[in-house]
Amino acid sequence: MKTVALLNAVATGQVSARDMCDAALARIEATEPRINAFTAQTVQRARAEADAVDAKRLRGEVLPLLAGLPYAVKNLFDIEGMTTLAGSKVNRGLPPAKSDAVLVQRMKASGAVLVGALNMDEYAYGFTTENTHYGATHNPHDLTRIAGGSSGGSGAAVAALQVPVALGSDTNGSIRVPASLCGVWGLKPTFGRLSRRGSFPFVHSIDHLGPFGDSVEALALSYDAMQGTDPLDPGCHATHAQLIEGSLDAGTKGLRIGILGGWFHDNASPPARSVAALAAKTLGATEVVTWPDAGLGRAAAFIISASEGGSLHLKNLRVRAKDFEPLSVDRFIAGALQPAEWTIRAQRFRRIYRDCVNSLFEEWDLLIAPATPVCAPVIGSETIDIGGVKHPARPSMGLLTQPVSFAGCPVVAAPMWPEGTGGMPIGVQLIAAPWREDICLHAAKVLQDAGVAQLKEPAL
Amino acid sequence: MKTVALLNAVATGQVSARDMCDAALARIEATEPRINAFTAQTVQRARAEADAVDAKRLRGEVLPLLAGLPYAVKNLFDIEGMTTLAGSKVNRGLPPAKSDAVLVQRMKASGAVLVGALNMDEYAYGFTTENTHYGATHNPHDLTRIAGGSSGGSGAAVAALQVPVALGSDTNGSIRVPASLCGVWGLKPTFGRLSRRGSFPFVHSIDHLGPFGDSVEALALSYDAMQGTDPLDPGCHATHAQLIEGSLDAGTKGLRIGILGGWFHDNASPPARSVAALAAKTLGATEVVTWPDAGLGRAAAFIISASEGGSLHLKNLRVRAKDFEPLSVDRFIAGALQPAEWTIRAQRFRRIYRDCVNSLFEEWDLLIAPATPVCAPVIGSETIDIGGVKHPARPSMGLLTQPVSFAGCPVVAAPMWPEGTGGMPIGVQLIAAPWREDICLHAAKVLQDAGVAQLKEPAL
Repeated sequence: MKTVALLNAVATGQVSARDMCDAALARIEATEPRINAFTAQTVQRARAEADAVDAKRLRGEVLPLLAGLPYAVKNLFDIEGMTTLAGSKVNRGLPPAKSDAVLVQRMKASGAVLVGALNMDEYAYGFTTENTHYGATHNPHDLTRIAGGSSGGSGAAVAALQVPVALGSDTNGSIRVPASLCGVWGLKPTFGRLSRRGSFPFVHSIDHLGPFGDSVEALALSYDAMQGTDPLDPGCHATHAQLIEGSLDAGTKGLRIGILGGWFHDNASPPARSVAALAAKTLGATEVVTWPDAGLGRAAAFIISASEGGSLHLKNLRVRAKDFEPLSVDRFIAGALQPAEWTIRAQRFRRIYRDCVNSLFEEWDLLIAPATPVCAPVIGSETIDIGGVKHPARPSMGLLTQPVSFAGCPVVAAPMWPEGTGGMPIGVQLIAAPWREDICLHAAKVLQDAGVAQLKEPAL
Repeated sequence: MKTVALLNAVATGQVSARDMCDAALARIEATEPRINAFTAQTVQRARAEADAVDAKRLRGEVLPLLAGLPYAVKNLFDIEGMTTLAGSKVNRGLPPAKSDAVLVQRMKASGAVLVGALNMDEYAYGFTTENTHYGATHNPHDLTRIAGGSSGGSGAAVAALQVPVALGSDTNGSIRVPASLCGVWGLKPTFGRLSRRGSFPFVHSIDHLGPFGDSVEALALSYDAMQGTDPLDPGCHATHAQLIEGSLDAGTKGLRIGILGGWFHDNASPPARSVAALAAKTLGATEVVTWPDAGLGRAAAFIISASEGGSLHLKNLRVRAKDFEPLSVDRFIAGALQPAEWTIRAQRFRRIYRDCVNSLFEEWDLLIAPATPVCAPVIGSETIDIGGVKHPARPSMGLLTQPVSFAGCPVVAAPMWPEGTGGMPIGVQLIAAPWREDICLHAAKVLQDAGVAQLKEPAL
């Protein structure tokens, strides 16, 4: 049952929240051995949260926004009483979290039911969720392929219909890449819009948190539940909630919509180009727009990610580098050794870059680009082929997402199903000016209503 | 003639702006060989600007705020048609500035008359203005002593009564140190409050610009003329002008005023402590307040200054290090080689530090501390004596200013004249919460009215 139907069924008493919770747990039990999306399940908590919703309904109270909705979170969100692994072995030694992350608190306050913690690339540094400590997460649409990363567990759990909503994080593409490869909806909000308090950081100055969902409504409703200022998150700039649901059907009439060319065309395979073209056609966009300095933006994002990430883990890298993920430890060490001059220059460039990107939105309301260059590669792939050129697989999955998040714009990744990928999905980025998540979601709804972007049930 | 008297005399037609300008030029000519405050004079421009004021008056027009006031600027401010040296030899090869710095434009729009550019430590990296390329600036109250730095020319020019107002910059103390050592008034505004556009940077993330003056009124009037938002300065946060003049006599009644102990007591010589104590007594302050983590704040400011400064000059350091100031080139090179990890950690600390400092101002409206540990040392001194302990002279002049600017608070430096310094001044910092320049200036006015802080005419 998709999010809106599920919420209606619980709200009207047609089914209990406990039944929905147990159905999710059963689906997880049945599919998890093949997917490996979860690192922990919170069965007791889930049942208690579901029962609380049912008790509320029985007392005749008005149910909150997400009453009875099962969800799970990337294991970098604090869950009270559990150790926050962030995909690592090193963190196993940390004490259990004393309270939930702010976004988990807000989901709980909205009646959502937490069923577990999800797999990821260690410390969010990767695009594949080939986690050496906890195993690779498998793509529900082809178990031999990656789910994408770093929020691979989140993308796979929604794609496998284990949960209708999952939370993840996105620094350079870690929501949009797995959403693209698993064929689910994803929202990376404006930088600073959702509180990061109580989540394990990767790159303080670029990290974003956001939802995955089975539908545009799932994104909008969970985003509505989570937004609002948190003065204790130094990176959180949100000053008010801008509720989306209810206005989801505003459409895109009158919006100036363009399709990104140049970098976003050159670094995309034919199937990736084709889904962007189909989204553009559906939304009535014809003009090709050039994003300024996409390659430099990506390079600067790499430099800042490596140095801030390396800095964060320096103490442990010094004494126990062997306990880190072999696929990313060298990058962390290199990042910690980078000269300050690179980082300072990248930060100064970021300001100029962000201003240039923002000025694009004086002429455009929405910009369209593929989310990944290709569909999901087979687990263990060292290279991917983009237009006949071989690229290193792991970093290249972020080619099209990294320049966008570095500017801080909000993006919805819409799940689309091109020809020529053997049935595998590739997502499309719907990109708007900072603070205009509403535009991304309105456009996403148009694509959903037109039937060109949607979840497909995997043959599991 | 001091600022207010001068402005009144010009406004009433008692003297012409041209006469005031020529008087300033004559004073400069007479004293400059002993002071070396200027690196260039703008005689033609000064006379043209003065004549424009006089013409305005003759036409019966209302004169602007600073009509006829001679002033000069640290040579890191762009002056149209001149090369901005920033105290360096390297910059001689740069083309002349195409337009005035924003603050110079605003001073000009207010009728002030620019008479020249002032000496400084190379690239603002120093506290002594012992500039190897352009010679040391001499302290007008004792020509054997330093003027302080890096805005040493600005402090000395006002102290020598060459100009009633000068502009300078302050990253770690470069307005407050020369104000303290030369016995003049100085204002370092809130970080981000005055536009830095058109000035040569030292440390983008800490640089401030501000005025020196012969009186509290000189500070308030020139600050009023310069404030206001500049959207093209990425560091400028000012959203509105908060005019000071007219409310200067608000006094300090009802304000919660404390005197800083700990770091600010331990790193001050007895004469420096005595001026802070006298200011506190005059303002009715009795309680001793502890500034959080002053030493760590200073260390982090050092790290960020060295790495951002080194980063800025890396290209030239690589090919012509020998053309740099021998007194600071090693620090620039070391800064450019710093690992990113240090800078990132210092920046993260800064946020915590700033929040801790800001929370002090929930309990206090104004905090008092000496501006320098000692009075001006003799030019060439390698060490200074603070309470019987020898410290390296050049960096230690910023011991008491650096922790304050790193938090971004506004400060007025008030010129005071302790016992035991052979007649040399030591300034006192009047520190308020961000955006409360008005409180600093009100307190300064009380000290000025009480006769405990003031300029003294040097025996030149």
